[in-house]
Amino acid sequence: MMQAMGFDRILGGVCAPKGFLASGVSCGLKPDGRRDLAMVYSENTASAAAVFTTNQVKAAPVLLSRENVRGGTGRAVVVNSGNANAMTGERGMEDAAVMVAAAAESLGLPPEEVLVASTGPIGRYLDMDKLLGGIEQAAAELNPGGNTDAAKSIMTTDTYPKELAAEMEIGGEVVRIGAMAKGSGMIHPMLATMICVITTDVNLSPETMNGWLRQSVEWSFNRISVDGDRSTNDTVFMLANGSAHPGGYTMSREEESLLFRALCWLTGRLAMALVKDGEGSTKLLRIVVNGASSDEDAVRIARSIAGSNLVKCAFYGGIPGWGRIVAAAGASDVPVDLDNLSVFIGEYAVVQGGAPVETDPEDIARILAREEVEVTVEVGKGAGSAYFLTTDLTPRYVEFNASDKS
Amino acid sequence: MMQAMGFDRILGGVCAPKGFLASGVSCGLKPDGRRDLAMVYSENTASAAAVFTTNQVKAAPVLLSRENVRGGTGRAVVVNSGNANAMTGERGMEDAAVMVAAAAESLGLPPEEVLVASTGPIGRYLDMDKLLGGIEQAAAELNPGGNTDAAKSIMTTDTYPKELAAEMEIGGEVVRIGAMAKGSGMIHPMLATMICVITTDVNLSPETMNGWLRQSVEWSFNRISVDGDRSTNDTVFMLANGSAHPGGYTMSREEESLLFRALCWLTGRLAMALVKDGEGSTKLLRIVVNGASSDEDAVRIARSIAGSNLVKCAFYGGIPGWGRIVAAAGASDVPVDLDNLSVFIGEYAVVQGGAPVETDPEDIARILAREEVEVTVEVGKGAGSAYFLTTDLTPRYVEFNASDKS
Repeated sequence: MMQAMGFDRILGGVCAPKGFLASGVSCGLKPDGRRDLAMVYSENTASAAAVFTTNQVKAAPVLLSRENVRGGTGRAVVVNSGNANAMTGERGMEDAAVMVAAAAESLGLPPEEVLVASTGPIGRYLDMDKLLGGIEQAAAELNPGGNTDAAKSIMTTDTYPKELAAEMEIGGEVVRIGAMAKGSGMIHPMLATMICVITTDVNLSPETMNGWLRQSVEWSFNRISVDGDRSTNDTVFMLANGSAHPGGYTMSREEESLLFRALCWLTGRLAMALVKDGEGSTKLLRIVVNGASSDEDAVRIARSIAGSNLVKCAFYGGIPGWGRIVAAAGASDVPVDLDNLSVFIGEYAVVQGGAPVETDPEDIARILAREEVEVTVEVGKGAGSAYFLTTDLTPRYVEFNASDKS
Repeated sequence: MMQAMGFDRILGGVCAPKGFLASGVSCGLKPDGRRDLAMVYSENTASAAAVFTTNQVKAAPVLLSRENVRGGTGRAVVVNSGNANAMTGERGMEDAAVMVAAAAESLGLPPEEVLVASTGPIGRYLDMDKLLGGIEQAAAELNPGGNTDAAKSIMTTDTYPKELAAEMEIGGEVVRIGAMAKGSGMIHPMLATMICVITTDVNLSPETMNGWLRQSVEWSFNRISVDGDRSTNDTVFMLANGSAHPGGYTMSREEESLLFRALCWLTGRLAMALVKDGEGSTKLLRIVVNGASSDEDAVRIARSIAGSNLVKCAFYGGIPGWGRIVAAAGASDVPVDLDNLSVFIGEYAVVQGGAPVETDPEDIARILAREEVEVTVEVGKGAGSAYFLTTDLTPRYVEFNASDKS
């Protein structure tokens, strides 16, 4: 199936592309001694692009990296877990700047080529002694097989490290793209959310990469919801160092399309992994909306359904909550024509023309017992479609988020 | 305190104003035999106004009553529980029309003077034999002390009937206003939400009453959230029959203001009662936003905080989730300046100027243990303010909404 897509899945995560090293160390920011500092480094200067949280309250490292990425080049990404450095005021900004400066010095780079991100509890100052020790150690330990250590070091409530890579042939050379990601939602008390780092050894202009990254994030990380809250720290970085074509190479339109598809595959799969690892959930819900006037309208309807606690509780309980699904569709700000509305749970129509359809309860129960349930809403207006991934809402989710300790 | 407001709380609910009768009977729509059909009747023709759900998916009785109320007069309100008559297509519209016609015939009224509402499971056809029997019985049992029977008959998952009334002196006469309400959110599987019926014996034009009703609903029922979902059936009716001033009377501006305040007191108190009776909740949260650029902005920020599952879980767990509160404020679409943001839990500042404030954990724990917790967010932009009422999110809420049986 991969080959049919024109690329193959390979191991190696962020280190799969040529010229990238990584490391992940424990410097004591996490009280339990787990790894908490990741570094990704490109041996050449790379094009850099980033997408940040749309929450108005942005953490210090987000504000700083947003400045640094404007230059369009980058060599290193440093991510700490165990502390989000968010809502830490001026001191937090200074700490983020020191974090950049220390990494730049350890790696012999100008500070503008260092991007940083932080994830963990909000509103606490970074322990800079520990952090600086960790940066020094991580720089010393950079190696071509450090990808999984790095992926582990960015974890917070994640139960396993998430990384993925693909290779394909472009311009007569094997080129690669790799990524690591963490976090699915603000699912931990005062913890900040999702971080993703993507590397590739193709040569890309910052402008092209920026456009691709925005689009692939829109189709992946912006289509998942565990609790509906956008965090203060959400960050996706991408570096492209051109190492696959040392003599330079300009991709054809077909090759660009292939690489873009591989990027979307990476981000889409990682986004799904983040949802599945959402704390306390028992089911993955895929909400598909077809027949909207536009894709944007379809997204809004799908988001409204995916964000409904009542829908999410129904799926936890294994009950066919189509009344809730229709009500949630109607509560979106997109005009919905009830007479043209159909709802499918799995392959079974439960609503057609706005009215319930007789179904065999056992058929529906069998679908609802699955770990992945697809709900399709046909709006009957046009050709716009979209999907949204979410989880069920469970008592364990509530207990988890009601505790400060986990 | 009531007298300082210019009016006194009295008993009698919707029957407190002169010339109103009510009844509540059991006709078998609820399987457990509880009362399920309420009727409120005015001995004179009354001005009528109504506010309906903003959900695009509107139940048949909503569509029909929206037409009937356009005439500006009404004599009777008929509400059944046990079945929402929502998503029932053309047959549902016909059933609603038969419900109106039957009540009109029983009461000797033109159908345009009958308003109807339904609440209960979505997507099931009404059992018209039972309903029509109930209408006949309810019409026969109308009496000046039937208010509590009526309030009981509109209950679904409510644990107690909710009614309230007040009296004041206007134009040398004692005038009264009364109300009953049910339901707090779409808290039951496929159950439709809130219904409120308000009566007064003052004479009001439909236009004035319509404006007042919209404003008072905006400040009360539109400021509560249990699960964030708007239902297909939300309805607020108001009838004003002028019986207090048989010879007619035109209120002064001060008297209008007094009556409007009494209306807002009724709707505000009933809205709070609905939130408190929200299934599975343990705490009432009052989110206050001050210092926004406008009241509308303040509402949007307050709604974003009140709608955050993470905030609601934190309060269930008794943890000071101010990081979540700030993130939720930042996730609203209203510009928020972090440097000017303060958050208070009860009377204690926990965030000032966007940074955490040292507090004694025991002080905060004492506040969080209360049944009613007030969170104040100061935005530091202008004079706009608003509040929103919500509940904590609990495992019991999830279990309740994951079950089809309760």
